[in-house]
Amino acid sequence: MSEEEKRPSETLSEELIERIKNLIKEGNKKELKSIIDSMKPADVADLIEHLDSEERMFIFKILEPEGAGEVLVEIEPPIQESIIEKMDDESLSEIVESLDSDDAVDLVSHLPEERAKQIIESVEKDVSEEIKKLLPYPEDTAGGIMALEFVAVKADATIKDAIEEIKKKKDEIEDLYNIWVVDNEGKLVGAVSVIDLLLEPPEKKIKEIMNRDIVYVDVYTDQEEVAKLFKKYDLISIPVVDEEKRLVGRITYDDIIDVIEEEVDEDMELMAGIVDQEIAETSPFKISKARLPWLIVSFIGELISAMVIHRFESSIQKVIALSFFFPIIMALGGATSQQAAIIVVRGLATGDISVLSLGKRVLLEIKSSLIIGITLGIMLGTVVSLWLSNLHLGIVVACALIIVILIAGFIGTSIPIALYRVNIDPAYATGPFVSTTNDILGLFIYLSFVTWFLSTHYV
Amino acid sequence: MSEEEKRPSETLSEELIERIKNLIKEGNKKELKSIIDSMKPADVADLIEHLDSEERMFIFKILEPEGAGEVLVEIEPPIQESIIEKMDDESLSEIVESLDSDDAVDLVSHLPEERAKQIIESVEKDVSEEIKKLLPYPEDTAGGIMALEFVAVKADATIKDAIEEIKKKKDEIEDLYNIWVVDNEGKLVGAVSVIDLLLEPPEKKIKEIMNRDIVYVDVYTDQEEVAKLFKKYDLISIPVVDEEKRLVGRITYDDIIDVIEEEVDEDMELMAGIVDQEIAETSPFKISKARLPWLIVSFIGELISAMVIHRFESSIQKVIALSFFFPIIMALGGATSQQAAIIVVRGLATGDISVLSLGKRVLLEIKSSLIIGITLGIMLGTVVSLWLSNLHLGIVVACALIIVILIAGFIGTSIPIALYRVNIDPAYATGPFVSTTNDILGLFIYLSFVTWFLSTHYV
Repeated sequence: MSEEEKRPSETLSEELIERIKNLIKEGNKKELKSIIDSMKPADVADLIEHLDSEERMFIFKILEPEGAGEVLVEIEPPIQESIIEKMDDESLSEIVESLDSDDAVDLVSHLPEERAKQIIESVEKDVSEEIKKLLPYPEDTAGGIMALEFVAVKADATIKDAIEEIKKKKDEIEDLYNIWVVDNEGKLVGAVSVIDLLLEPPEKKIKEIMNRDIVYVDVYTDQEEVAKLFKKYDLISIPVVDEEKRLVGRITYDDIIDVIEEEVDEDMELMAGIVDQEIAETSPFKISKARLPWLIVSFIGELISAMVIHRFESSIQKVIALSFFFPIIMALGGATSQQAAIIVVRGLATGDISVLSLGKRVLLEIKSSLIIGITLGIMLGTVVSLWLSNLHLGIVVACALIIVILIAGFIGTSIPIALYRVNIDPAYATGPFVSTTNDILGLFIYLSFVTWFLSTHYV
Repeated sequence: MSEEEKRPSETLSEELIERIKNLIKEGNKKELKSIIDSMKPADVADLIEHLDSEERMFIFKILEPEGAGEVLVEIEPPIQESIIEKMDDESLSEIVESLDSDDAVDLVSHLPEERAKQIIESVEKDVSEEIKKLLPYPEDTAGGIMALEFVAVKADATIKDAIEEIKKKKDEIEDLYNIWVVDNEGKLVGAVSVIDLLLEPPEKKIKEIMNRDIVYVDVYTDQEEVAKLFKKYDLISIPVVDEEKRLVGRITYDDIIDVIEEEVDEDMELMAGIVDQEIAETSPFKISKARLPWLIVSFIGELISAMVIHRFESSIQKVIALSFFFPIIMALGGATSQQAAIIVVRGLATGDISVLSLGKRVLLEIKSSLIIGITLGIMLGTVVSLWLSNLHLGIVVACALIIVILIAGFIGTSIPIALYRVNIDPAYATGPFVSTTNDILGLFIYLSFVTWFLSTHYV
């Protein structure tokens, strides 16, 4: 990033926050309202995240009822939750009614069960029906992220009819790029882009301009697969169908950007043992609680490493210097494995590694590990030979490192692939199980080699 | 992922690949052409990635001239490069002419200098002018990813005029969601969505329906900042302006999905020391070459760890068991630091951590590290006390671990923030420099503590 670069996303200045805090203290609702009305919902959400709990509710009261929903969905989950907790059922129902069906169901599904029931009962009938329709789908499927707001017409409708249909739904659909074409049973048969509706004569039949070769997904398709389709075909929206291929919903690109970020966050979380939404968490106890499980797995794993070292205590007794190289063995084995695993995990997540070529991938990684192992083995062998003035020991350590790295490369590649095959998120392979396994195996191999050497040369 | 889930992105079956390989062997161009014509460009690109070098060129000859460009841009970079190398200048010029300006300049900018010049000279004048206009912008700025294809009208034009303008440009712009409004000097003053053009009466003036409060970026805005704006405001396209706020280009959401993936890949690469585009690399020598620098940094760092241990050799001589706990100290310090760093790096990348709250973040991480350190310290202290039957040594080791984890948490949070402040990618903090620093410090603190203890209790 260059020096002179503007940071346009930082539209929220410290001065503005201060000013708003003061206006809240003064209770100057009129002035606050005029500032907030001039801001975009996402910026108001940002502002609210920077305020304390009481200030937040003050701003929220000013937003209600129209603007509140738009802002609420943009607020980070832990803060959103705390605001919803403090809100009465009536305000919450109004907000739910104002949201798109996908946002409404998202909000309701995260409420405590009792409250969710109450809200569903108190909202308008069509809204509660929509929520009931969407609630059963798992959160990470097409059904779980789709909205029910879309425009569908019959193939023998005219463009004029289609435009009429769009006008009818204009209030509930803000962003429309495609309309879909269905047959008499509601089955999806085609798509037309809005731009084609604009450019073709109004009396033309939809079937003359519709695209019949459309990409669509099933309600139960995993959201990650949906995201891959968006990326592969540069889609802007995708129709969602049920088991009978009847059109039931719509997913748009902005939901997919969220999915991509979510999946990346998930991978990063598995990699580091961090829990979802931790970024916005402000309690150190909750943060620690989220991170400790991973650390405890690591603790137990390294306790096994300790036992491995203990088993070879007499070798270390003979040559204390053997312990000097524990960090190198651990770090290089771990890093090689991690490099291979990250490539495979990312490749599978983005679709850049095809399932058809996984066998080749393992072979390629083994070859690479061999080259890496030999290079680093020679380096470490030289260091050990010179430091301990013992060429033979150097060679033995070098051979040990080559084998450690080969195994690490194999583990790093094959574990994520194996997890993927049995439908477990391959990103687990970048977590503590694999890294401690590498440490244990690495130390064991290293100490076995040098112990064998010592037994043949010192006794 | 559920058992019965379809993998819709795997439209390319092994059977189809086999069939196509056979058709190529037979030289059956007609049959091949009919198969390929029925496929989407992204699927043809997938297919090509699964073929060997000669088969690829065979398919490519069939695609030329119309379909070739669309397919070429979808192919993974190393394979794309090898195809372009084998292509003659005439075919390549034709492909460049068929591409959108952003794709054309991307392709040309990756050619060897000499060949790039030749291609620029041989394409049509308007294409070469576009390329020359876009080439100077750095690849990771708004100017570097924007396209020159957009529709702009004056504020006092009518909707009908705007539609005429769109019709004129229909051939070069496939995906259009917004048109922009400029004044007499070409400065950006507003935006209108295509859907509004469709729904409002044709005689209405653009200025009556245009949105004046538009989000736009400067040509030199970092692409990561552009992506943040797309995410924050759910944009579908954004206008790019020059220093005088004159409209010069357009970035669409599909480019942004690429940017998001690119930035994630970059972060992952820095984290693991892998080089860009390694996923599609097939030479184990190139892969090893890409990964070794990171491993060598780690090697050197852990050599310092070895020296630290060497410095405390006499303590280990007294109590060999001290070496048993090296792996735990290293693993827990490293993991704590990594957890903190990943949260900060992701938070800064997605914009979820505001620059305004970085100070708070450091404090929060220190508090969390203290809780984590005390928990793990008690665990390790207990293990050491029982294993070595020495309560006092257990307490000393526990205290050492608490301090190691506190420092690790501080390093993990403050290094990425410091890097961000000086405009270096904070993801470097997740790489080998920080992890080896943690190992060195961790071992030093641990061994200093136990040495002090041994000196007061054993001598």
